[in-house]
This record gives sequence, C-alpha cells and structure tokens, in this order.
Amino acid sequence: MGQCCCKKRKDCQELTNVEQAIETVINQFHCYAVKGRKEYLTPNELKELVGQKLPHLGNCIGPLEEKIECVGDPSEARLEFGEYWDIMGDAAKGCQKK
Amino acid sequence: MGQCCCKKRKDCQELTNVEQAIETVINQFHCYAVKGRKEYLTPNELKELVGQKLPHLGNCIGPLEEKIECVGDPSEARLEFGEYWDIMGDAAKGCQKK
Repeated sequence: MGQCCCKKRKDCQELTNVEQAIETVINQFHCYAVKGRKEYLTPNELKELVGQKLPHLGNCIGPLEEKIECVGDPSEARLEFGEYWDIMGDAAKGCQKK
Repeated sequence: MGQCCCKKRKDCQELTNVEQAIETVINQFHCYAVKGRKEYLTPNELKELVGQKLPHLGNCIGPLEEKIECVGDPSEARLEFGEYWDIMGDAAKGCQKK
C-alpha cells in the first residue's frame, strides 16, 4: 500500500502543471483508499498517507483524530474525497503561513 | 501576469510528490493574486488563472461568476486562499468523475 499504482492518463491531453498537481493529489487518495475501493479512506489509511506523503506539511493539519472523529461512529469512520481535499487544504494553508 | 514568478524553495527539504503538488497549487494563487498582493484573487484574476491553468478541468468547476458572487458586493469581490482551494477541489471532484 502506498507504493502503488497511480494510474497514468491514457489519453494524450497535455495537462498544465496545475492540472498535473491536482491529479497527483487525487491519485494519492485512490492509492491509499484500498479498503474503501477508491471511494473512501479509513482512519489508518489517512494516517499512513499523511505520514508517508506529507512529512513536512503534516504538522499543519492538526490532530488527524479530530478530523476523522467528526465524520461519525468511529468504527465506521471513513473519509470521502471532499473531506480529504479539505484536509489537504489545511496543509496548504499551514504551508502558506510558514 | 501568469507567466511569472513562482518562488522556489530556498531550503533543501526534499518534498514528496504530493507536497510538491500542493505547493504548485499554492504558488499559482500567489502568481495571479497581483492586485491583492498575494492575499486574494480578483474575479478577473481567477478567470485568468482558470482559463490559462485549468484548460481541461475548468469545465468541472461550473460558472465562476456564481462562485465569486457568493463572496459579497461585486465591486469588492475577492477570493481568499481557502475559497480558491475549494474551487480547485471542485475541479478535482469533477476530474474524478470522468
């Protein structure tokens, strides 16, 4: 897990650097969302992603437990893409302030 | 404008691909936020950014006017970083569904 995969585009659209960047962030979600079959991340998958992929920005996010607890019953905690994007936004905002 | 700039990190932290991607998205904001001195985008700056940097994903965002109008008085319309990040998220969600 985490070493995967990450589909490459099959078509030959030339993406801009910003589009490529967005695609990179999207792909990570899919790479780590194994249990959720690319639909959602479990708390452990999120922790793994942040630990491995955001070693410098992870501190800006704040306690991951809080983000995940918000979603509901802990045993069914899952992070959907929109929530994942918001967490990446927290990292980005923290990074901005540095 | 738009051809700029985009600070390079001076330190020698080795960022992961996800961190680099987040930084790319952040940098675009700063590049286009000329009038707002890197603090906010005007409606025209946002349109320029989306037109130039999201040619393939821009359609997923929906009408930009609506996003910007939400912010308040049109003559003072401004998009702060958090709102910009949300708009990029709309592009990402649209791209996911493709």
